[in-house]
Amino acid sequence: MSVIETCHRCGTRYEDEFRVRCGCGEPLWIESEATTFAWDDGGDRSGIWRYESLLPIDRPDGVARAAGGTPLVRSPGLDDVAGGRVFVKDESENPTGAYKDRGSAVAVPHAIAAGDDVIGTVSYGNMAISTAAHATSLDRECIVFVPEDISRVRLELIGQYEPTIIRVSGGYGELYGDALELSERLPISVLVSDAPTRISGYKTALFEICESFAPETPDVIALPASSGGFASGVWLGVRELERAGLIDEPPRLCLVQTAAADPLTRAFEDGATDPTPMSPDETGETIAHSIGNPDPPSGARALAAVRDTGGAVVSVTDDEIRTARRQFAVEGGFCVEPASATTLAGVSRLADRGEVSAGESVVLVPTGTGFKELGTGGTDVTAETVHRTDLPARLESLLP
Amino acid sequence: MSVIETCHRCGTRYEDEFRVRCGCGEPLWIESEATTFAWDDGGDRSGIWRYESLLPIDRPDGVARAAGGTPLVRSPGLDDVAGGRVFVKDESENPTGAYKDRGSAVAVPHAIAAGDDVIGTVSYGNMAISTAAHATSLDRECIVFVPEDISRVRLELIGQYEPTIIRVSGGYGELYGDALELSERLPISVLVSDAPTRISGYKTALFEICESFAPETPDVIALPASSGGFASGVWLGVRELERAGLIDEPPRLCLVQTAAADPLTRAFEDGATDPTPMSPDETGETIAHSIGNPDPPSGARALAAVRDTGGAVVSVTDDEIRTARRQFAVEGGFCVEPASATTLAGVSRLADRGEVSAGESVVLVPTGTGFKELGTGGTDVTAETVHRTDLPARLESLLP
Ligand SMILES: [Zn+2]
Ligand SMILES: [Zn+2]
Repeated sequence: MSVIETCHRCGTRYEDEFRVRCGCGEPLWIESEATTFAWDDGGDRSGIWRYESLLPIDRPDGVARAAGGTPLVRSPGLDDVAGGRVFVKDESENPTGAYKDRGSAVAVPHAIAAGDDVIGTVSYGNMAISTAAHATSLDRECIVFVPEDISRVRLELIGQYEPTIIRVSGGYGELYGDALELSERLPISVLVSDAPTRISGYKTALFEICESFAPETPDVIALPASSGGFASGVWLGVRELERAGLIDEPPRLCLVQTAAADPLTRAFEDGATDPTPMSPDETGETIAHSIGNPDPPSGARALAAVRDTGGAVVSVTDDEIRTARRQFAVEGGFCVEPASATTLAGVSRLADRGEVSAGESVVLVPTGTGFKELGTGGTDVTAETVHRTDLPARLESLLP
Repeated sequence: MSVIETCHRCGTRYEDEFRVRCGCGEPLWIESEATTFAWDDGGDRSGIWRYESLLPIDRPDGVARAAGGTPLVRSPGLDDVAGGRVFVKDESENPTGAYKDRGSAVAVPHAIAAGDDVIGTVSYGNMAISTAAHATSLDRECIVFVPEDISRVRLELIGQYEPTIIRVSGGYGELYGDALELSERLPISVLVSDAPTRISGYKTALFEICESFAPETPDVIALPASSGGFASGVWLGVRELERAGLIDEPPRLCLVQTAAADPLTRAFEDGATDPTPMSPDETGETIAHSIGNPDPPSGARALAAVRDTGGAVVSVTDDEIRTARRQFAVEGGFCVEPASATTLAGVSRLADRGEVSAGESVVLVPTGTGFKELGTGGTDVTAETVHRTDLPARLESLLP
C-alpha cells in the first residue's frame, strides 16, 4: 500500500518516497486519504483495527492485534484533585504495557511490507520493549540501540524478546539523526519516536476516546509530552475527525512535561513556534524516565497541536509527580508510571489557574504501566505481624 | 440485587442468605436468572459490562469499568509449539495486569452493596493487588492477609494502593477457612479465591472468547489451575451459553498445573471426583508462584468442569515453564508470568499425546503479566558496546 506523506508546517506532499522528515526539517505524517468515515465502519473489529480504513497498512496477525482498545474509565475519585470530571484512558492495558504498542503495531508491519528485513529502534524504555515485541511476533530481527550505561533492569525488560541490543557510546543523544541516515542507506528500518507510521498508530488513541464520547466531545485531553510524537498523533486524529465531520469543537490538548526537561513548556510560555533545545547544564534528573527529552524532534508540531486546539503546556516537579502517582493508585486504583502521573499533576495545576473548570470532562492518558518499575523492593511498606489465633481479636479492634 | 446461589454438586439453592459454601461442603456459584441472552445485548458497552445482564451487580464507576475486554489474538508463531492453531487471550491487559480484575470488579462492589464497609482478601499475589485496587477505587478500606515471610517486592506491589496489610504467622495455609468464619461474624467481606461473585466475574472471560469466535466455538481452552476458581468461572460461562443456545459443543477445558503442586492432575489421572490435598512433604518449589496450590478449594468443581467438557488436566515442570515463557515472548511477543506460560507447555504436552490436533483452534489464556516479576536485574543479558562512530560499519556486518 503506497502512502502519501505531508508536512504540517509547509504543506509539502511526498508521494513517491517514504521519508521521516520534510525538506523544511519538520517530521512528516501520513494523512489518511479516506474521504468518508463513520464510527460504525469499525464493525466488530477490536483495538486499533477498528480504524483500519484510516491506517496505512492492513491488519497483521500476532501481537499487533492486541494493540489499543484500552478502556476509558470514569474515575470520580480523581475529580477533586484534577478539578474536572475525570476519565482515565488506561494505556497500560496494551500488550507491552504502554501506548507505544499502537505505534509499533502500525510501524513494524509497514516497514516489513516496505521490504526491510531488520527493524531497529533508539530507546531504552517502553518504545524499545514494544518494538522488540512486535518485530519478533512477525518473525523479524530487531536491533535496539541503548545507552552504554543502561540498567540491568531495563536490559532484562527489553532482552526477554531477544533482540540484538547494542550499547552505544560516544553520543547517544545524537543517535536520532544517525538512525535516519542509516535507515536510508542500509536494509534496516530504525523506527524512531516520530516515525510517520508510529504517528498513524497513535491517532487511534484519539479515535477511541472520541468514539467513547460520541456524539459528545471531551473538553480536555491531557498527555505526557516527551518527543512530541504522541501529541502529534493525537492532533492528526483530531484533524481527521474534524474532516470526517465527527467532531466540531476539538478537545483542548494539554501536554505535561517534567520540570527537569521542559523545552515545550518554555516555548509555549514564550510564544515560540519551535522549542529551543536545552543544554545538559539546564537539564535535571527526574523520576519520570519515560519523558524528559531536552530536544524533542516533534516539538514544533506538538506546540502547533496545543495552539490549534486551545490547549496548554505545563511542567510539574518530581514531588508533584510522586503525589499524583499515589493519587492515581489510591484514589483511582490505577498503577501508572511516573511519566504518566504527570497528567494528573498538570491538570491540577491548570485547574488552579482557572484553565479547567469543575464541570468539564477531562481525559487523563496514563501512557504506561507502573508495574515495570515497581517491585524493586526499594520502598518501605508497613505491615504488622499477627498470629493466626490472635487474628479475630485484632480484626475486631480494626473494624468499625 | 438479590442473587440465587446453587451448588454444582448437590443442586441445593440458596435464595435468602449469601454464603460461600454449600452445606455439602462444595463452593457455591451464582447462576444467572436471565432467560434470554444474545451477543448483541452488550450494545456498545465495554469490558465485562457487555454482559451486565448476566452479572449479579450493576456496573459501578471506577477501575471496575476497566476490567475485561482483553484482546484475543491469532498467534501463528506459537502454532508449532502448541500443535494447534493458537489464539492468545491476553489477560495481562487488565488494569492490574491479571484476570483477577474480572473477579474483583464484581465481588468488591457486590460486597459493598451488601453492606460490608471493609473488604479483605487472603493473597500475596495478583488477587491481593487486584482486590486492593478495586476497593480503594470505590473508597473502601481493604485488609490484605499475607504470609509472614512475604517478599519486599510483593509488599511494594500490594502496598501502592495503601490497604492495611497484615502478615499472618502460625498457619497461613489455614486462613481460607478462618476467612469465611470471620466474614460471617464481623463487618468485613474477605473475598477468597472462589467467592461466588468472583466466579461470576471470571465467566466473562469465556463469554468474550466465545463472542470473538461466534458463531464458531473454539476447540480447546487452556488455563493455568490453582484454586480451581478460574476454571469454575469458565465452566459456569460454558453452561450459561449452552442454556442460551449460543454454543453447541463446548470447548474442551484443559487445566495446567505446576508439577510442584498438582493435586488436580493426580485426581484427574486417578479418576477421582475430589482432589486429595498434598502434604508439605509432597509439595515442591516452583517459579510459577501464582499457582501451586496443594489444597484447591474449588478442586472438585474444576475436575467436574474438565470432565463435563471432555478436557484434561496436565502438569508441567519448571524447565518446561521457562521454555514456554521464552516462547511466549520470542515467538508471540507476549510477556507472561511463569504461571501463565504453563498453558503453552501443557497444550504442547497434550498435542504430543495426540489430544490436540493441528487443525484445532486452541485458546491459551495467560492470566497475568510478566512485567510484575521481570526487571529484578537477576538475568544476564548480552549486549555489545559500540562507539557511535563505529556504528555504521558494525551494522553493515550485522545486516543481511
Ligand atoms: Zn515541510
Ligand atoms: Zn452442595
